Amino acid sequence: MAQQKATNITWHETTVTAEDREKLLNQKGCVIWFTGLSGSGKSTLANAVEHILHQQRHHTYVLDGDNVRHGLNKNLGFSPEDREENIRRIGEVAKLFADAGTIVMTAFISPYRADRDQARALIAEDRFVEVFVDCPVEVCEERDTKGLYKKARAGEIKEFTGISAPYESPFNPEVTINSAELSIEECAGAVVSALVKAGLVPAEN
Amino acid sequence: MAQQKATNITWHETTVTAEDREKLLNQKGCVIWFTGLSGSGKSTLANAVEHILHQQRHHTYVLDGDNVRHGLNKNLGFSPEDREENIRRIGEVAKLFADAGTIVMTAFISPYRADRDQARALIAEDRFVEVFVDCPVEVCEERDTKGLYKKARAGEIKEFTGISAPYESPFNPEVTINSAELSIEECAGAVVSALVKAGLVPAEN
Repeated sequence: MAQQKATNITWHETTVTAEDREKLLNQKGCVIWFTGLSGSGKSTLANAVEHILHQQRHHTYVLDGDNVRHGLNKNLGFSPEDREENIRRIGEVAKLFADAGTIVMTAFISPYRADRDQARALIAEDRFVEVFVDCPVEVCEERDTKGLYKKARAGEIKEFTGISAPYESPFNPEVTINSAELSIEECAGAVVSALVKAGLVPAEN
Repeated sequence: MAQQKATNITWHETTVTAEDREKLLNQKGCVIWFTGLSGSGKSTLANAVEHILHQQRHHTYVLDGDNVRHGLNKNLGFSPEDREENIRRIGEVAKLFADAGTIVMTAFISPYRADRDQARALIAEDRFVEVFVDCPVEVCEERDTKGLYKKARAGEIKEFTGISAPYESPFNPEVTINSAELSIEECAGAVVSALVKAGLVPAEN
């Protein structure tokens, strides 16, 4: 009976912790939260950062509209409540990935400061890196890679961020990237440098 | 201009794929879906499996009530619709983890066949391992590790699986574990063997 209890305790003690997973992966689980207008380059930049980190043998994942809006959040629309719930769920999932030891990147417009701050509040202070992908709306609209600005101007999309709905720039993001003036390599390098500086990944020799 | 286009294409080609992540981790991203009554040993078993896999340097994560019900699914109750949405979200999050290359384990009662099959349908056929933790309700009730059966019998918890709400056993689970008669080591070993046999992790030498 005492024996039985001891066995239970042993199994509890051998639970794999977040620290164990981080040691295995040689990195710190963290959230890199990209925010910016549609067309500012969030997804492209997240993918470029992932590419660099992967070459350095880091374990990474990118959450974006493609894998979240059609899956976990497919039952959400674009009402204010649904937008808030969209970002809330993304923040909670990012937290799970960070707990798993993964360097997870989120690439969503996430236009409201309050929603981003709510996501930040879920994560340990030194594990949340907000990256403001700062690009003038004129440049985004000129690119219009998905043709969304055209539709917004034609009134086919209501409440389009930057045109007919607000975008609230971060006050104190960990990183600001001027994506209109720098090359993708420069942008991605700046983000990776910030991660090294924050001690989230080791410096490459 | 032609140059510019070529640059864009290059960045697209260097996107890190699910296969790239799997190669780095030396495993296949997959979902091990534990199902069974409250007290059958799902969480304990998932943690034991994680412990073995971690020692073999595999990247793993366990989704359970502790990290999901208080976070992502904290806005869900126990109505039929909320229970369904609970399992739906867990399935979608498990899918994201598997896509990231992680061996993710889910430890929830998940009493309904239809809900489990919906989760299964999200994942590639050879990446979903349903583990039925088969334990007689009498044994679970005798253990009553969380005191929930007592409350259910007293009518303090309504619609408690196995007492006042149904549990639908899987028809064709990949693994069935008789947790009432085997040691935790035997149970965990059986699950890991099934993963090796399915080619999801390499055999240990």
